Amino acid sequence: MATIKVHGSAMSTATQRVLACVHEKGLSYEFVSINMQAGEHKLEPYTKINPFGQVPGFEDGDLKLFESRAISQYVAHAYADKGTPLVFSDTKKMAIVAVGLEVEAHHFDGPASKLAFELLYKPMLGMVTDEAVVKEHEAKLVKVLDLYEARLSECKYLSGDTFTLTDLHHLPVVTYLMGTKIKALFEARARVSAWVNDIMARPAWQKVVAMKNNN
Amino acid sequence: MATIKVHGSAMSTATQRVLACVHEKGLSYEFVSINMQAGEHKLEPYTKINPFGQVPGFEDGDLKLFESRAISQYVAHAYADKGTPLVFSDTKKMAIVAVGLEVEAHHFDGPASKLAFELLYKPMLGMVTDEAVVKEHEAKLVKVLDLYEARLSECKYLSGDTFTLTDLHHLPVVTYLMGTKIKALFEARARVSAWVNDIMARPAWQKVVAMKNNN
Repeated sequence: MATIKVHGSAMSTATQRVLACVHEKGLSYEFVSINMQAGEHKLEPYTKINPFGQVPGFEDGDLKLFESRAISQYVAHAYADKGTPLVFSDTKKMAIVAVGLEVEAHHFDGPASKLAFELLYKPMLGMVTDEAVVKEHEAKLVKVLDLYEARLSECKYLSGDTFTLTDLHHLPVVTYLMGTKIKALFEARARVSAWVNDIMARPAWQKVVAMKNNN
Repeated sequence: MATIKVHGSAMSTATQRVLACVHEKGLSYEFVSINMQAGEHKLEPYTKINPFGQVPGFEDGDLKLFESRAISQYVAHAYADKGTPLVFSDTKKMAIVAVGLEVEAHHFDGPASKLAFELLYKPMLGMVTDEAVVKEHEAKLVKVLDLYEARLSECKYLSGDTFTLTDLHHLPVVTYLMGTKIKALFEARARVSAWVNDIMARPAWQKVVAMKNNN
């Protein structure tokens, strides 16, 4: 029986972030599907794992965690010797990863997720896209992508010359945005475009994409 | 000459977060005041440290970092053996800190910072507080504080029985909110109230408050 359990939805970007990490590490785990339409994430027993009532939740033996970026950091450190190395033991190299993780969370994810909401989820739910919101967040995303383009002239990935947790954290929202007109913003920047193609092609990520598509 | 430099403003919550960490560690450092009214944070040479043009920036020898929460994590790990221990070497204990850090960043800081903006900064700048925004974010903050009250029945601090980086990250905004009507929300919860009094009284934090007051 697997000691690792990932609770969530294969459609959720936060759940996918954790799944990507677990697959990069080649860990065996049990996926516990949470029926969000039925509100299972807002009810016990799930709220015993995440009192905020959001997916994903995570268990490793008796350790219970929530918040996708905390879970992925735990997995990357606890299983450092398995699969793809996603963090560094060197403190200074790790500090560069920490900066990259904060930039993803505080600069990239806000506009990127709002664009995915306006351009993918809203049409899917029969709601009308707010073009003013799209414009506002396109402008914010462009600034981040310009800095990423410059950053990727200094190293192959965002936090060094190897794929790290920083790159991994971007995968779910980037992949959704590739199915919208926002794709053009990534493609207009040569290094960003090559980086997106590289990270999206990773076998571990392709397994998560297959889980989403079979959902 | 100090090898550690903290660039920023003593009024800025993000700068204060880093200063609190450096003081808890008892490190000697040079404070480089950034004149934000003159827009120094948006210009070179500062943008060589933080390309996003925000404070704080940080240097330790030739290592340049930005994003307050990444800097504090670096300091806590790189100087683990100095001053107050703020993180754990045990992976599972550290995972609990990682969850607490994400909760601060993604659940607490949003409403708390918006309330500080509406109730402190706006009046200071002669702008009018938007009471609808205050109500909206009060409701969000109450939910977090209720979960903190429950959490603090399980352990003395948010991520364990000792003061950690999680508690420290809350200090700047909590301290500002204590000067507003939002103080009542903290005081209405016995454990949250005791926690606030405890962490605000820390000598390292009092030094940062003095820097702010002498600004």
